Amino acid sequence: MSVAVAVAFPNIALIKYWGDRDADLHLPVNGSISMNLAGLTARSQASLEPHLAQDELILNGERVEGDGLVRVIAFLDRVRALAGVEERFRVVSANNFPTAAGIASSAAAFAALSLAATTACGLRLGEAELSRLARLGSGSACRSVPGGFVEWHMGVDHASSYATSFAPPEHWDLRDHIALVSEAGKAVSSRQGHLLASSSPLQEGRLLGVTERLGRCRSAILAKDFAALAEVVEQDSLLMHAVMMTSSPPLFYWAPATLRVLSAVRQWRSEGAPVCATIDAGPNVHVLAPGEWAEWVVEQLQGVPGVKQVLSAAPGGPAHLEM
Amino acid sequence: MSVAVAVAFPNIALIKYWGDRDADLHLPVNGSISMNLAGLTARSQASLEPHLAQDELILNGERVEGDGLVRVIAFLDRVRALAGVEERFRVVSANNFPTAAGIASSAAAFAALSLAATTACGLRLGEAELSRLARLGSGSACRSVPGGFVEWHMGVDHASSYATSFAPPEHWDLRDHIALVSEAGKAVSSRQGHLLASSSPLQEGRLLGVTERLGRCRSAILAKDFAALAEVVEQDSLLMHAVMMTSSPPLFYWAPATLRVLSAVRQWRSEGAPVCATIDAGPNVHVLAPGEWAEWVVEQLQGVPGVKQVLSAAPGGPAHLEM
Repeated sequence: MSVAVAVAFPNIALIKYWGDRDADLHLPVNGSISMNLAGLTARSQASLEPHLAQDELILNGERVEGDGLVRVIAFLDRVRALAGVEERFRVVSANNFPTAAGIASSAAAFAALSLAATTACGLRLGEAELSRLARLGSGSACRSVPGGFVEWHMGVDHASSYATSFAPPEHWDLRDHIALVSEAGKAVSSRQGHLLASSSPLQEGRLLGVTERLGRCRSAILAKDFAALAEVVEQDSLLMHAVMMTSSPPLFYWAPATLRVLSAVRQWRSEGAPVCATIDAGPNVHVLAPGEWAEWVVEQLQGVPGVKQVLSAAPGGPAHLEM
Repeated sequence: MSVAVAVAFPNIALIKYWGDRDADLHLPVNGSISMNLAGLTARSQASLEPHLAQDELILNGERVEGDGLVRVIAFLDRVRALAGVEERFRVVSANNFPTAAGIASSAAAFAALSLAATTACGLRLGEAELSRLARLGSGSACRSVPGGFVEWHMGVDHASSYATSFAPPEHWDLRDHIALVSEAGKAVSSRQGHLLASSSPLQEGRLLGVTERLGRCRSAILAKDFAALAEVVEQDSLLMHAVMMTSSPPLFYWAPATLRVLSAVRQWRSEGAPVCATIDAGPNVHVLAPGEWAEWVVEQLQGVPGVKQVLSAAPGGPAHLEM
């Protein structure tokens, strides 16, 4: 086979990854936990093209050049080394959700590309090996390889740093309702942001408690204890943004409407609704709630000024080949 | 004399006070630096009233009861103990700026009351002793006693914790333009907030660097180096809000328009304007700039959506008796 198509879902981090101990290998300074987002898909077709002098990337119908292409070529070089092939790839990728707005588009894209490109070369990698490979493209892509509720074990080197599933998608019908407050791209990419994490005087304090938060989060998901999940998820998200805002230079990802949604979610929870909020490196707010509250949450979010659209996702499965 | 009238200015902290090592004596966990705000005045008239069975407080024309009165009675008990008097006070106070909206109204009020009440008892306290006394009413009130640019030395006990001036008001025509985005009172008072500071996993990281930031701030003011001041002031303010947002329970003082002003200030600075922002325990944004930029800054701030009013202040003098 010299062509393959794979699909992967983005993931929302419930315990955040922020900071690299090895920026080249994307070895993180802490473990993280996430949920894949069903329905939001990154689809990637990879084909080996013997006549091409250089890899080609078409993303959402447009040819990518510059930094975006360089990054993908570096990744495909690793795939070629692994597979022992010399040919160039043509990669045709598309997302069905806005790119670079705090939804992990690069995570889903590199998870899908890892599977498509290795399959096109005739490789059949196990899940852990595929997760490691995806990590080399984009750190959090390793979490979009396994299905459902996933933990990225930070590890100490390439071999030990990968993600595994600790509960399948059907374990808990938790929903992520993404309140899109801006579709603008980020001023500073997460890749660059990870390099700044250690410049914040607060990063050390964030890291000191992360093992405990990972345990609380895993335990809350396994027990389907929404109140316990809400507490640790909101705290961990704010710890990451506190580090971002106090790095040198400071990184601000929040828009005015971000605060409006955060405040509304706290208000609804104080009134008894099981909702909590988490924010990635972007202005959009991910509002988590049990499935039976989905309609109510979406309706409430649509009423918050500044919310342009709400995308909803249930727990998603692993990266997989499209037949 | 059994009646005296004193005036004091609120102060804006440039290096923030957040957290008490002794909540009763308001001994802080770190030193702080502030500038008094001329023109925003708290005026307090204190008179000894032999016929009164209980202290009376009239604030902005209204009789205060409940917690607000209890707090003032406790403070006046300390004044009576110091002066060796038994009589009750009638206190008539008024501010010419909104109360409890992130402008340090209690700081100015207790600085003025310290001077008025002790003078009414016939005492003539030195500046350091007056600063210590004011601290017992409201921690940051100790900084509204001396004039101009002030440092509160954290100290280890009542005697060693007070504020002194390190540059007079005329040293530098720095202006504070307060963008009022909400006149609503605070959900959580600073007094209660100080008790929560240690519950944040980030407080320790904030404190580790505070001695260095105090030095940088003092040095920038003495050298009138606005760029150096801007950097340390913005960083210190964000460190405090990072601690607030990650305490248990989390404290959010920002409104959507707070973020809008913060973002505008960063934009103006990137375009070459000498401006920086700092936020106390409230939603309003204090925008600092050299005096020659005052008109420009006010005009810009008035154009930011959500800014209801801009109050401007030059460096203010010490708490003083009204003749």
